[in-house]
Amino acid sequence: MANSCCCYHLSHKLRSSISSLRNLPLTSSPFTRRRLKFPVSPSRRTHTLSAANHVHRCGFTWDDVFKLAETQQNDSSDLQGFFEKVKLCNRNSEMQCEFIPFVLEKRIVGYVHNRFADHLRGSEDVFIFPDDTSYGGNFGCYITLHPMIRTIEDRTRAVEDVIKCLGEELIPGIRNELYPVTSSFGMPEFFSLERAAAPYFGIKAYGVHMNGYVERDGQKYLWIGKRSEVKPTYPGMLDHLVAGGMPHGISCGENLVKECEEEAGIPRSISSGATAVGAVSYMDIDGYRFKRDVLFCYDLKLPEGFIPKNEDGEVESFKLVPVTHVANIIRRTQFFKANCNLVIIDFLFRHGYIKPEDLGYLELLQSLRSGDCS
Amino acid sequence: MANSCCCYHLSHKLRSSISSLRNLPLTSSPFTRRRLKFPVSPSRRTHTLSAANHVHRCGFTWDDVFKLAETQQNDSSDLQGFFEKVKLCNRNSEMQCEFIPFVLEKRIVGYVHNRFADHLRGSEDVFIFPDDTSYGGNFGCYITLHPMIRTIEDRTRAVEDVIKCLGEELIPGIRNELYPVTSSFGMPEFFSLERAAAPYFGIKAYGVHMNGYVERDGQKYLWIGKRSEVKPTYPGMLDHLVAGGMPHGISCGENLVKECEEEAGIPRSISSGATAVGAVSYMDIDGYRFKRDVLFCYDLKLPEGFIPKNEDGEVESFKLVPVTHVANIIRRTQFFKANCNLVIIDFLFRHGYIKPEDLGYLELLQSLRSGDCS
Repeated sequence: MANSCCCYHLSHKLRSSISSLRNLPLTSSPFTRRRLKFPVSPSRRTHTLSAANHVHRCGFTWDDVFKLAETQQNDSSDLQGFFEKVKLCNRNSEMQCEFIPFVLEKRIVGYVHNRFADHLRGSEDVFIFPDDTSYGGNFGCYITLHPMIRTIEDRTRAVEDVIKCLGEELIPGIRNELYPVTSSFGMPEFFSLERAAAPYFGIKAYGVHMNGYVERDGQKYLWIGKRSEVKPTYPGMLDHLVAGGMPHGISCGENLVKECEEEAGIPRSISSGATAVGAVSYMDIDGYRFKRDVLFCYDLKLPEGFIPKNEDGEVESFKLVPVTHVANIIRRTQFFKANCNLVIIDFLFRHGYIKPEDLGYLELLQSLRSGDCS
Repeated sequence: MANSCCCYHLSHKLRSSISSLRNLPLTSSPFTRRRLKFPVSPSRRTHTLSAANHVHRCGFTWDDVFKLAETQQNDSSDLQGFFEKVKLCNRNSEMQCEFIPFVLEKRIVGYVHNRFADHLRGSEDVFIFPDDTSYGGNFGCYITLHPMIRTIEDRTRAVEDVIKCLGEELIPGIRNELYPVTSSFGMPEFFSLERAAAPYFGIKAYGVHMNGYVERDGQKYLWIGKRSEVKPTYPGMLDHLVAGGMPHGISCGENLVKECEEEAGIPRSISSGATAVGAVSYMDIDGYRFKRDVLFCYDLKLPEGFIPKNEDGEVESFKLVPVTHVANIIRRTQFFKANCNLVIIDFLFRHGYIKPEDLGYLELLQSLRSGDCS
């Protein structure tokens, strides 16, 4: 009941926003350059984006999603909204100069912000800072682990202890889930690191994301999840049917089957038919956090009658949405968890929803792998 | 009759090559580094590649193709043969320092080899060489057109005259087909240039390539063409069902429909169902020639009963080949026209024939867009 009220209230607000903001001028944005290159009508853009930003700030319901997705607008070949979503995953690249390379066995495995590094200097039995510029950076040194800590297990434990000492204030959201630290995918593991700490060490992180779709009368529909409002990360936002980080010691394919079961109740008999279709990558700097993520993308064509069922309480509900409407949600709103946008834009490319005739086609395609895709 | 003799002769030679070369050691190759990284059995590699190279030098028949494709080998997750084909399209990048930027209206539109440029210096009413290093390069200047030649038509005619004067010896294969000269795709045209001359000016060239496939009992098959033995370029080699350069004044989609009709007799009613699925790019230096190509990739799922029919005499015959066998042809031979390999490897990625579990997955994926994809 409370939910329905909230839904009505927001929908009403949304309608007011749309009508009152229809003719206001564009506000400044970091995308001014691109906007000039791919001009669109200011009044149309203001109407959709402002309404979307409004509901984004206040939370949103499926009702809001469908309203924005179904509105008829002549923007099906306008890639600007997609460029903006790619940009959202690749912020502040100019800040890379503030990071110190994190090196193990002569390979760069991450980057640590110079001011975050100050917190590690107290643990000189774990982290050391040799004066050496051969790995780049502006601080005349790199960071590495003390040479006396040699085995994977010892490194894992030593770094874990330091992270615990730094505490939740510096590294929030510790979840006791370990990520393998490597120089690139498939290479030997140097040690394992708490998932929440990975961006503070600029470790490469890998994940699997799956587009679950249905084909009906020649039209494609994507199953979209809405994250639980009580999830600590990205509560209430739209998400893929299935997605998850790559933990230690499991292949991408096996991890996907596991996540399919947990997140959407898809049995192995169906999920084993998922197709690996490529990968996207991004590089995002946010304060001390340096995300260098690679997402392996999968497509799974589901039987028409299949209804996903979340098993781990992380998803509030699923809806089956026409792909053209999903494209509208991405270009017009920030409702999706940011990195899902990249994987769905990749889907739009591979399934012909974005065409070479759309201005910016090649630039957008290239931008889907802006991070170090290795 | 002559053809059958030749076919028998080559098949016989192939069998001899395979048996006589089975246990010879590997010869040196430019791929030594990668070979060390992704080791495969030397004896197996020698057998397949040497036989393939042999028939490549002497020409080959469909019979040879099928023999090599169908041989059982445990190489389905070995990406080395694919890396080699990407490398074939991206040769000599270290020679870029020998080229002078070709600039129009303050944008780099191409690169001209410094010794080829000497031939242009005689035409000082068309080509000039301002002393200015702001566009890079090692020669203290860039190349541009004389400022008195202002319109697209005048530029096209003036450059055409110079090319004619240089003659077939310097620029062979002139075919009176014009390519638009732009700084990137979709940008305004500066002038039009004879297609055969494009690599001598390092102009970006665009094309469309289509994977025509059939699905039967859950298995996918690709229609593969074998180029006519009398074609001036890449005679007798394997090719896509449909592919063509992008001429002036036509969209990718329309060009594809046109090429479908001419090259494979596919009517618009079928070809209009082709799906744009992305693009690949490469950058290849070969003497004075600097290719900077972008290929827009399409998939077309054909009806099972459809038989392609070449209408322009450029294709000798078509065969329907299981995708797994096409993958073997690519990894084990150089039978395909080099750039087709990239487009088919992209197909293998998108359709799940190459998997994240295969060592080198991300590196290979990234390498498919090694050129300036813009």
